[in-house]
Amino acid sequence: MHSSQPLHFTAESTADGMTERDFTVGGVPGVLWSPASPATGTGRAPLVLMGHGGGAHKKHPSMAGRARLLTAGCGFHVAVLDAPGHGDRPRSAQDEADIAELRAAQAAGEPEGPVVVRYNARLAELAVPEWQAALDALQELPEIGADGPVGYFGIAMGTALGVPLVAAEPRITAAVFGLMWPDALVEQARRITVPVEFAMQWDDERIPREAALALFDAFASTEKTLHANAGKHFDFPRSEADSAARFLTRHLARTTTSPA
Amino acid sequence: MHSSQPLHFTAESTADGMTERDFTVGGVPGVLWSPASPATGTGRAPLVLMGHGGGAHKKHPSMAGRARLLTAGCGFHVAVLDAPGHGDRPRSAQDEADIAELRAAQAAGEPEGPVVVRYNARLAELAVPEWQAALDALQELPEIGADGPVGYFGIAMGTALGVPLVAAEPRITAAVFGLMWPDALVEQARRITVPVEFAMQWDDERIPREAALALFDAFASTEKTLHANAGKHFDFPRSEADSAARFLTRHLARTTTSPA
Repeated sequence: MHSSQPLHFTAESTADGMTERDFTVGGVPGVLWSPASPATGTGRAPLVLMGHGGGAHKKHPSMAGRARLLTAGCGFHVAVLDAPGHGDRPRSAQDEADIAELRAAQAAGEPEGPVVVRYNARLAELAVPEWQAALDALQELPEIGADGPVGYFGIAMGTALGVPLVAAEPRITAAVFGLMWPDALVEQARRITVPVEFAMQWDDERIPREAALALFDAFASTEKTLHANAGKHFDFPRSEADSAARFLTRHLARTTTSPA
Repeated sequence: MHSSQPLHFTAESTADGMTERDFTVGGVPGVLWSPASPATGTGRAPLVLMGHGGGAHKKHPSMAGRARLLTAGCGFHVAVLDAPGHGDRPRSAQDEADIAELRAAQAAGEPEGPVVVRYNARLAELAVPEWQAALDALQELPEIGADGPVGYFGIAMGTALGVPLVAAEPRITAAVFGLMWPDALVEQARRITVPVEFAMQWDDERIPREAALALFDAFASTEKTLHANAGKHFDFPRSEADSAARFLTRHLARTTTSPA
């Protein structure tokens, strides 16, 4: 496979057993975290693509924390892109308008779901081809390779962008999602058949319980698990990141390619 | 605390790092599994009470397998009693009548839920005081102790008997349940406030989805997690036993008493 948009590394550092490399692909900034000392020497390791939440960015502490579990704990590579209008990327006039509409709904105590769903669906149309180009380029790295296992892990906006990506991208063979309205995603979820772990908050004040259950129900995967935790939207427990790491290990490590 | 019904050990063997001791308390047969070499030397370890499923018994392979996870993996003691009319215990005329009614409903393709609910609720009334007497006696053992952490783990009939037990028994501070109709249990579940992990099958052909969700919803615990897996009733995945062991470790090991 030959990428039309090559990956350019722009910075590299190593700390606490994790190597961090900033990169761009087609102008989109991303970060690639890897184990500082790959367990398999010259061998390849699975790649996990992670989508960040709304208003966050590729190196948000929640991303770095999950990357540590997946690199140090599992020996995986982890890549995150800044979503359109997030992190180091400029906001368009439409981004500004969508965010203003969201803030207005929140300030007025009106349901934010319809605004988030429409805003994130627009971002997903931009982000899916960016992710596919980044995956093309990342798979040209010898430590990842074109035929290695690839997973996806994204909660909230990371699910709004990730469900369309996983539905479109047969190279992704396991995915962790959660905390999103189903409205724009049900049709794509029905086309996803790879193993899925889906997290929701049982007392979510933003996303109705039935809405979250409907999105989980929509996945066509024969192997799928719902984790519902007591608590409100932002009570989402850290233990779900540990669970996601175990889930991705179960589904990606068993198909790891041997060293060349 | 002094038990009115002492515990009598009737057999002991050790294999593969697990010591198995048969016992009786007040005529009820049980088994106590322990790590062959306690990690803490003369110290105490948490105790997990496990309830077996309908038609099974205290040493059913599912019990022995979960006990191995909890003893070898977590360093815990694990006790299982034969439920009334199960294992080494005689069936009463009422047991025979209830089981015949269940088989007739299954043969006729009629809903078995009402029969199971009524049958198991009757067993629970017998089993709860038996469990409480066994716990009294087990806590007199020096390797368990009267003030050590106690958990409960029971699926299906183990939930039908366990929810009333945990509701009645303040010594139990964490519980894993699943795969049961809510009808006889909702009121007791509403009195349970300790951390709960609850497992259901998303495509259960016996227990309607809404019924399982209603039982999870009823627990008053501020810390509770639902695990719903794709698949039918008997597709219940073995990975849930691993998850239960992690859950019980999180909630019991952190309160382990120091060696005397």
